Amino acid sequence: MRQRIAIDMDEVIADSTSAYIARYNEEFKANLTIGQLNGKKVRDVVPQEHRERVVSYPFTPGFFRDLPVIEGSQAVVQELAQKYEVFIATAAMEFPPCFADKFAWLQQHFPFISWANIVFCGDKSIVQADYLIDDSVRHFKDFRGEGIVFTSPFNHHDQGYRRVNSWREVRDLFL
Amino acid sequence: MRQRIAIDMDEVIADSTSAYIARYNEEFKANLTIGQLNGKKVRDVVPQEHRERVVSYPFTPGFFRDLPVIEGSQAVVQELAQKYEVFIATAAMEFPPCFADKFAWLQQHFPFISWANIVFCGDKSIVQADYLIDDSVRHFKDFRGEGIVFTSPFNHHDQGYRRVNSWREVRDLFL
Repeated sequence: MRQRIAIDMDEVIADSTSAYIARYNEEFKANLTIGQLNGKKVRDVVPQEHRERVVSYPFTPGFFRDLPVIEGSQAVVQELAQKYEVFIATAAMEFPPCFADKFAWLQQHFPFISWANIVFCGDKSIVQADYLIDDSVRHFKDFRGEGIVFTSPFNHHDQGYRRVNSWREVRDLFL
Repeated sequence: MRQRIAIDMDEVIADSTSAYIARYNEEFKANLTIGQLNGKKVRDVVPQEHRERVVSYPFTPGFFRDLPVIEGSQAVVQELAQKYEVFIATAAMEFPPCFADKFAWLQQHFPFISWANIVFCGDKSIVQADYLIDDSVRHFKDFRGEGIVFTSPFNHHDQGYRRVNSWREVRDLFL
């Protein structure tokens, strides 16, 4: 039986931070850059009076539809899928208006992942897999397999798990 | 740590067969009843020339929004949730247009189930739980916990698993 790898979407294969920044800059005629985040989320670096708008972005239909693909993810996920069972597992239940966008995004950018291998969930401890590649270490707490942190702007200080800084490093680890 | 029960939607808490029959009868001015199914699906008992229409029903937005609730399921699921971790796990990926309807239906009829405990998947072997109550025994094949068959019009002949015929029997089994 092949080992199974579950892979998160946001900040692992889909660059949602760039979309937050682009949308924020557009709405408020600002010039926020990813370098200014310093490990914080967009909502935590903007003026207090803008925060509510930023928090609302992922509830907007379309937000998750046009996210940039994280560099290297397509080729490496496709390679992984030759040797492992690969599932995409995303905490989509937090943002119900995103369901259709996330599914369409996966079909466009990861067409080699079957619908049978896509999971929209909330609490990821429900995921039965040998590995979970995720940028949020909170998902590893009750996960039965090994959690592997994918470096994002927000998790530099999280310790206690194997870490990969890029899809090249994922490739080196598994292939 | 509490034991975890995963529960399917269609034919376990949501009566989709009734909706197939109602929609079919309405479209074709027919008088099909559940008693006429004899363990077959609606698409398998209608004239060949109607089959394509019936197969299309679950891809229609709205189909899953108004399904009747299976008798007894609300009260027993609520009781189970006091003693167990309860997740709802449905193979929604097969019918992407149903995502929003299934989520809204759960919010309406099972408001005590948190979004964090809802799973839309394809292959249910991804579900990490101690028990899976489902009407499709195909989902038990690679499931790591115990599969429990919930009797539906289509599974009378499936053997090899514990079976419950009603939510009263689920209650007797777990509570």
